[in-house]
Amino acid sequence: LSLRGYTQMRYNDILSGGPNYYDVRTTNDRSVGDRQNFFIRRARIILSGDVSDHLYLYFQNDFASSPPNANSTSATFAAPTNAAGQAVYYFYNPVFAFPGYNQVGSYSNAPGNFAQIRDLYADIYFDKDKEFRVRAGQSKIPYGFENLQSSQNRLALDRADAINTCCKDERDLGLFFMYTPKEMRHLFRDLVKNNLKGSGDYGMFAFGVYNGQGANRIELNKGTHLVARFTYPYVFENGQVVEASVQGYTGRFMPYTQAIRPSLGMATNWAGFIPLNSPYATVGSAFVPYVNGPGWSSLGNFNFSQYGAVNTWGPAVANGGEGIRDSRVAVTAVIYPQPFGLRAEWNWGVGPQLNATQTAIEAKRLNGGYVEASYKYEDKDFGTGVYFPFVKWQYYNGGFKFDNNAPQGRVNEWDVGVEYQPLPELEFTAIYSHMDRTNTVAAPYRQFQADLLRMQLQWNY
Amino acid sequence: LSLRGYTQMRYNDILSGGPNYYDVRTTNDRSVGDRQNFFIRRARIILSGDVSDHLYLYFQNDFASSPPNANSTSATFAAPTNAAGQAVYYFYNPVFAFPGYNQVGSYSNAPGNFAQIRDLYADIYFDKDKEFRVRAGQSKIPYGFENLQSSQNRLALDRADAINTCCKDERDLGLFFMYTPKEMRHLFRDLVKNNLKGSGDYGMFAFGVYNGQGANRIELNKGTHLVARFTYPYVFENGQVVEASVQGYTGRFMPYTQAIRPSLGMATNWAGFIPLNSPYATVGSAFVPYVNGPGWSSLGNFNFSQYGAVNTWGPAVANGGEGIRDSRVAVTAVIYPQPFGLRAEWNWGVGPQLNATQTAIEAKRLNGGYVEASYKYEDKDFGTGVYFPFVKWQYYNGGFKFDNNAPQGRVNEWDVGVEYQPLPELEFTAIYSHMDRTNTVAAPYRQFQADLLRMQLQWNY
Amino acid sequence: LSLRGYTQMRYNDILSGGPNYYDVRTTNDRSVGDRQNFFIRRARIILSGDVSDHLYLYFQNDFASSPPNANSTSATFAAPTNAAGQAVYYFYNPVFAFPGYNQVGSYSNAPGNFAQIRDLYADIYFDKDKEFRVRAGQSKIPYGFENLQSSQNRLALDRADAINTCCKDERDLGLFFMYTPKEMRHLFRDLVKNNLKGSGDYGMFAFGVYNGQGANRIELNKGTHLVARFTYPYVFENGQVVEASVQGYTGRFMPYTQAIRPSLGMATNWAGFIPLNSPYATVGSAFVPYVNGPGWSSLGNFNFSQYGAVNTWGPAVANGGEGIRDSRVAVTAVIYPQPFGLRAEWNWGVGPQLNATQTAIEAKRLNGGYVEASYKYEDKDFGTGVYFPFVKWQYYNGGFKFDNNAPQGRVNEWDVGVEYQPLPELEFTAIYSHMDRTNTVAAPYRQFQADLLRMQLQWNY
Repeated sequence: LSLRGYTQMRYNDILSGGPNYYDVRTTNDRSVGDRQNFFIRRARIILSGDVSDHLYLYFQNDFASSPPNANSTSATFAAPTNAAGQAVYYFYNPVFAFPGYNQVGSYSNAPGNFAQIRDLYADIYFDKDKEFRVRAGQSKIPYGFENLQSSQNRLALDRADAINTCCKDERDLGLFFMYTPKEMRHLFRDLVKNNLKGSGDYGMFAFGVYNGQGANRIELNKGTHLVARFTYPYVFENGQVVEASVQGYTGRFMPYTQAIRPSLGMATNWAGFIPLNSPYATVGSAFVPYVNGPGWSSLGNFNFSQYGAVNTWGPAVANGGEGIRDSRVAVTAVIYPQPFGLRAEWNWGVGPQLNATQTAIEAKRLNGGYVEASYKYEDKDFGTGVYFPFVKWQYYNGGFKFDNNAPQGRVNEWDVGVEYQPLPELEFTAIYSHMDRTNTVAAPYRQFQADLLRMQLQWNY
Repeated sequence: LSLRGYTQMRYNDILSGGPNYYDVRTTNDRSVGDRQNFFIRRARIILSGDVSDHLYLYFQNDFASSPPNANSTSATFAAPTNAAGQAVYYFYNPVFAFPGYNQVGSYSNAPGNFAQIRDLYADIYFDKDKEFRVRAGQSKIPYGFENLQSSQNRLALDRADAINTCCKDERDLGLFFMYTPKEMRHLFRDLVKNNLKGSGDYGMFAFGVYNGQGANRIELNKGTHLVARFTYPYVFENGQVVEASVQGYTGRFMPYTQAIRPSLGMATNWAGFIPLNSPYATVGSAFVPYVNGPGWSSLGNFNFSQYGAVNTWGPAVANGGEGIRDSRVAVTAVIYPQPFGLRAEWNWGVGPQLNATQTAIEAKRLNGGYVEASYKYEDKDFGTGVYFPFVKWQYYNGGFKFDNNAPQGRVNEWDVGVEYQPLPELEFTAIYSHMDRTNTVAAPYRQFQADLLRMQLQWNY
Repeated sequence: LSLRGYTQMRYNDILSGGPNYYDVRTTNDRSVGDRQNFFIRRARIILSGDVSDHLYLYFQNDFASSPPNANSTSATFAAPTNAAGQAVYYFYNPVFAFPGYNQVGSYSNAPGNFAQIRDLYADIYFDKDKEFRVRAGQSKIPYGFENLQSSQNRLALDRADAINTCCKDERDLGLFFMYTPKEMRHLFRDLVKNNLKGSGDYGMFAFGVYNGQGANRIELNKGTHLVARFTYPYVFENGQVVEASVQGYTGRFMPYTQAIRPSLGMATNWAGFIPLNSPYATVGSAFVPYVNGPGWSSLGNFNFSQYGAVNTWGPAVANGGEGIRDSRVAVTAVIYPQPFGLRAEWNWGVGPQLNATQTAIEAKRLNGGYVEASYKYEDKDFGTGVYFPFVKWQYYNGGFKFDNNAPQGRVNEWDVGVEYQPLPELEFTAIYSHMDRTNTVAAPYRQFQADLLRMQLQWNY
């Protein structure tokens, strides 16, 4: 067993962000946002190795994870109901006219950067050549090349949403069967080792069952997801390598919900629109969208109207207890960068998504993918290191199922950047990013257009 | 110093669960419940070794622990008070008749699987033979053979509640004195090493003081618990080993409380009963049971009626600040499986328990224990590995003091199963379990009868 | 890469604490307080080493950290609004007269002792002699000798507040440039190695930019802090070493706030005073102090009165979004204990502080420091180990910016104690402490006078 790892430290600067500056948010990087600065995105320690000829352990933890309610950048606001309190406040601080709102938000000092599991699996080999294996535990789901490629090796700072929205942290808990011919196993290893940005070995053929609620989440609907993947890397006589894959999964997903005040215009710049004299205008407090999936009749589908909020022994299953249909299929094509590289992936499917009136979550169509071109340049003249200039375009239109209320997201993003490796253990990446995205983190899920300068320093150990 | 560890991945299936399916819950395994699937129960990494001749370090962390508010399977329900919100809801989603309840629950996506201390102690030896030592830090409390035996070696998936309810995670923070004669030290080690399911060396004689509020909990009543244990393993000439122990502890425990709506029938199938025209029927909101222990007069026992909820500088000590009496004594008898093994433990005592009207927590009598028979079969003919078929019966009637409001629990459970070790580093266990238990996790603390198929895959490293 | 670490286990006893016993609280040790007992203050594991000639990794984690809402010793109180519930309660438990308050507090069983990052940085060296380096990541801020000295080596249990209030956990996330001449680098190392309680090497000259919101906290105002430090250790011919330093930082800090009921008398024994017929007397519920800093106009300073609590898409920036001015300068003088040692530090500045009416947080002057005298005695006659008797006086008057609402704190404390090292890997410290301090942890931020006996057992590995 040996220890290794890597750390990613980031700095994101919003160059321009339109009128709705505070909507510049992405799911994959909390330091994309107003008022942000240095940020530790990943802090990994990996304990791995062959325990015996038949058991290989991989145990990766991330020390930059946030427990519930930690590290929030959102201020909470006190309701303007405490008139006497406001009187004291305005008496001593005549900044604003009285009466009025409390004018004050509150930031929490709850800290982040705690240690959380990423991978924890055992590969159990059946044969001496280690061609056949069962992987038990939490592992990456064999769906999408970019998902399987380590963040340590990826050029772009974040994965493309089209494929990445399939799986929380790319991982889930389950059982996976994999088959890799012996020579292909060595090829997969070399594609990473030779700095060709490979995916690692997740099987030429892989099949798995897993919970489907996301990495480190507890199961909520007893329904497993099924996934299958076939990939074939081909080595030309001149050493050039190309790889093609097809993969798909199917299952039912129980969305996570949160009370919102519904409005119209989701995933557009005018999101938050409330028509005059509509039912929306008189809503008194936020509420939770309805999950429009089948119940769980075999366990007794409870008549909720018999249970009020007073009753602490209310039903344990929410409406739509079996969850929403969640199925996708994806294709992948890769030319490894020797020196010119090209990668493209696309997926289509159906998944949970908040409806246009923001009152229910339903199964909706989705599709999207990306194309990335890169070039590997080793500076042999001056020995300054290795350079990977690249350009990436991504598109997605569909639900972000792991965000609260599974809002619709529309993504159309260009990244132009370069990864520079002055030393094998040190990488610096700078990217100019033009984003046209939906803020799926908070209602009313408004579209934003922004230009960012993104930088990352990575050290490997 | 060296690193080692083990992981337990589980799958529990409820074969039959009677009318109150959603009450099938146990304290020791959150994946025993409706809508569950794969689950990581333990993910351990142990850093241990001799720092010098006089100091031994043992630092065990569990990476599958849940921080507060994480990984909940319970849906929260919005109160049906927002009439205008409901109007919007029913206007766009005419699933249920209006007016009515909101019909929607909400699941949190707060993740689990964070790293938390299990053991962190230093053994300080006074003599060269390491017979006398003081253990400082968080360690297992020397009470009960099954508590001391590692989960890595236990046959049954969970410890018997009768003894295990003594101590949260079997551990607490304190100082422990231990004496083990040199040869017995080697014997304790061999009983584990030779796959005989030993307890490890917690002293032939042990005495300790500890906080008593449970592992990783902060002290609340300044009152230490005292514990003492004497155990004697005897080796017969034919190599057979038997062990007998007696142990006891005493102290005061400050219960953890949570607002509930009280009702009658705790620990029976009709729990939750609210008689017509009783005071129960008109309760407006949930409230917290009274802790019926002595106050903390030496620090000034505050007159609570002078402090309202408005006052954020209210008193820091709750009623019953010294806690509830908590004392037990237990006996142990063990025949090690060479090949036939038998183990029995029983304990009697008094401890915190919610009263029958669910309005106060008081000191009540408790008793219970278990008997486990096992057989060790090494397949030398075909070399398929080692098999441990076993049967276990457990009984308990008393308070679950570490659960909120320390409810009464009645346990009568049969387990029949087999642990199979195809490789030394790999174990698979399958158990048929017939449970007659109280759901001590949530009010009204109802009794359930259920049959389960329980499976576990464990890998050691 | 190698693993090492240390653990500190504590026991604090309040010998006398005046009338307001429950105000005996300090920011630096949660086991200073009523009803406390054994406590794990630090549980460290450090992964460090040279990755290559140009990269050094230091990754220190603390496993005794508390995630949000964990390990609280404060009871929460139910509001006396549920008349029917109280009727049930008093009907079955006639302990107090009815009608009245609920008389019951509730303790949470949320556990602590989770793993959190302390240091995570890469030292990138530019020259062969490693004199010039850039440190990227989370590291100690080069401000104050005692801050830089490891807790593993410090004599007093806690750092002096005057300097330590500069930085949460002494650390922050940023980029630091350091220059140390080669021989001085060896000197810094030896001052630690030879048990002379050195600070380690943070550069003869250091300059840094960092977020400024504290270790493991997310940035809130995009404004970096700047820090610079110059230190010069001088070795006399007889081997005696003295060191002098000057350091300073400047930036803007966004305070963390929490609703309180305001009152007069902060940082005095009569804190909590509410004059009759004043606006204070009729305050209905707690509210949040106003942050009196400039807004964030370049991002659009939102007109908050347009957003109510209903609107979940309210503004993301609170008032005073750029934060409060936060600048300090400090001087240091050290004589290393060969055998007599002396250390003194003092700092002056301006920083966030709650005003006297407890309604707004403003920039206020602050100053304070400490003097510590120690003596190193090696028992060569009987070989019982090394003794460090010491006495320390500290003073501070200023804001505790990292505590909620940045209350004013006045500290005047004497410590007399001894650190005893029977073995190199084992330390025991006993201290008599006379405290005259403000309880900055909870409103109304009352002053207390107390005598404590404080003990610590530390083991190194």
